[in-house]
Amino acid sequence: MPKATQRRPAGGEFSLIAGLAKELAQVSSRAVQLGIGDDAAVLRVGKERLVVTVDDQVEGVHFDLRWLSAADVGYRSLQAAASDLAAMGAEPLAAVASLRAPRGFPEARLRELARGQAIAARELGCPVVGGNVARDLHLSVTTTVLGRVQRPLLRRGARPGDELWVLGELGLARAGLLLHQQGPKLPRRLAAVARRARAAWARPRALLREGLALRGRARAALDVSDGLAGDVRHLAAASGVKVVIEATRLAALVTEDLAELGDLLGEPGVALALNGGEDYALLAAGPRARRPADAQVVGRVERGRGAELELETKRRLALGSGFDHFRG
Amino acid sequence: MPKATQRRPAGGEFSLIAGLAKELAQVSSRAVQLGIGDDAAVLRVGKERLVVTVDDQVEGVHFDLRWLSAADVGYRSLQAAASDLAAMGAEPLAAVASLRAPRGFPEARLRELARGQAIAARELGCPVVGGNVARDLHLSVTTTVLGRVQRPLLRRGARPGDELWVLGELGLARAGLLLHQQGPKLPRRLAAVARRARAAWARPRALLREGLALRGRARAALDVSDGLAGDVRHLAAASGVKVVIEATRLAALVTEDLAELGDLLGEPGVALALNGGEDYALLAAGPRARRPADAQVVGRVERGRGAELELETKRRLALGSGFDHFRG
Repeated sequence: MPKATQRRPAGGEFSLIAGLAKELAQVSSRAVQLGIGDDAAVLRVGKERLVVTVDDQVEGVHFDLRWLSAADVGYRSLQAAASDLAAMGAEPLAAVASLRAPRGFPEARLRELARGQAIAARELGCPVVGGNVARDLHLSVTTTVLGRVQRPLLRRGARPGDELWVLGELGLARAGLLLHQQGPKLPRRLAAVARRARAAWARPRALLREGLALRGRARAALDVSDGLAGDVRHLAAASGVKVVIEATRLAALVTEDLAELGDLLGEPGVALALNGGEDYALLAAGPRARRPADAQVVGRVERGRGAELELETKRRLALGSGFDHFRG
Repeated sequence: MPKATQRRPAGGEFSLIAGLAKELAQVSSRAVQLGIGDDAAVLRVGKERLVVTVDDQVEGVHFDLRWLSAADVGYRSLQAAASDLAAMGAEPLAAVASLRAPRGFPEARLRELARGQAIAARELGCPVVGGNVARDLHLSVTTTVLGRVQRPLLRRGARPGDELWVLGELGLARAGLLLHQQGPKLPRRLAAVARRARAAWARPRALLREGLALRGRARAALDVSDGLAGDVRHLAAASGVKVVIEATRLAALVTEDLAELGDLLGEPGVALALNGGEDYALLAAGPRARRPADAQVVGRVERGRGAELELETKRRLALGSGFDHFRG
């Protein structure tokens, strides 16, 4: 953090973020244990370690009101923000939200949005304790989540020899988005996976329990919010290692019906898994002996730099801008 | 908090905020000492008391880029957010900011904005430790500030017999805004006050020192962000008292040159002081014997409800929607 949101993962934005971070990092204090650059910042307050992170959901950029109810927008805004806490192995404390809406946006729908926030707040144990309301050209929610942590899990720390783990779903929410964008006619046998995919996109869940279970096990972690292909590069860069994703293992994570749905949507299963970010899965690296029960191995950490996809033939592709053509 | 921003102080917005607050207040936790409804929320974390507040600065709503540099936008976004902490007698710890800009907005100007944030961060002792960057239709900054406090000063607590105090300037920033909007030709003798007014609007300061000096002295406080006439009603409502502003005392706060500038801008001195919010002055109530040295008395607290302006003739006007016609 700052990180690019889902629709701004291109190289230019990362250089912008680095430029802004450079200006802001000029000012620090004793309270700052970890500033800009990870999933969340870490502050020392007395004997406590606080984690703080902010996330935006902007109409027309992150969502479309033809596809989401106002309650969905509220729900996912809080879950998406809390996902950064999950990635750090932190527990949420509370959130504040800035809600902006155009003049004439019905008050009843804003209340519906707040009800969606409240449902997520209850599930996460993360009450929304304050906020701000302002007029804007379209609907948006900016959510700041505070949490507590003992030893935060960072993006740095992965070592050669570690396994690469995924916790949670990959590609399902991406399929949900593509379903909304393309509106294809589906064979009846794909109705169930399509329903699951739409739900995954509309109502993602921050994997708090899974993040807590990584403590003492993973050496590095982050949440997959910009897409696995991009986020794995962040882990590699922060840890100063090379991360290799094994295509056969990744393919094995994609259920048969999701793969079939992906084919129909023009994005094969592995591409869905590499591009999908809005499932808010967790990506972690750690020693095999400490792998949590619900972690799925998708690759490994090696000496070197960057991220690669290893095909079944053992041929390797660099995960870089070359994968952006998978994006819709 | 949530509170209306400067341009949304009408009755409809307050009912919206109450509606949203009602939905969100359904979920709380042991950590929440004070939720939605004051300048900031208060959280218990171990032995610490944390204060958290969020504020928006939206292009076309809160500012206009013809009148402010990008650095001004960054500077005032952090100061405005920190002002809620000042009103609680809290000390800032750190901030996070969400920055949204249209496609093609020059990166150099975004860096200039971050430099403005960094200048304010240094002045306030409040580093910006994280953020988010997203695309939007226009420029905006949403800032969440965290602080520490021992016993927060709330809006409730004022008692009949208390004096009403103002710390800081009133109306100067409002005159700065009107100068930008109207662009009048000024006589040379008003050049100095016009310069001060423009600076007050472009670079407001959170009155942290003044807020800390209110601890153990004031019984209730808030910052004047929506305009004195409106904010005094919040204090009265939260405390269950009537607050009377004395017009002669208020007029005495307005310097002669500011009053003359106000006349020229079509808003006499007292109206500037009643309408102006963006000076981020502090408004507090407390016993005369405990008045801080730099507090200026503008009225008193009585039994009853609501807020009134007492004219020199002793005639009283209710401060309600009736004063909205002063707004530009």
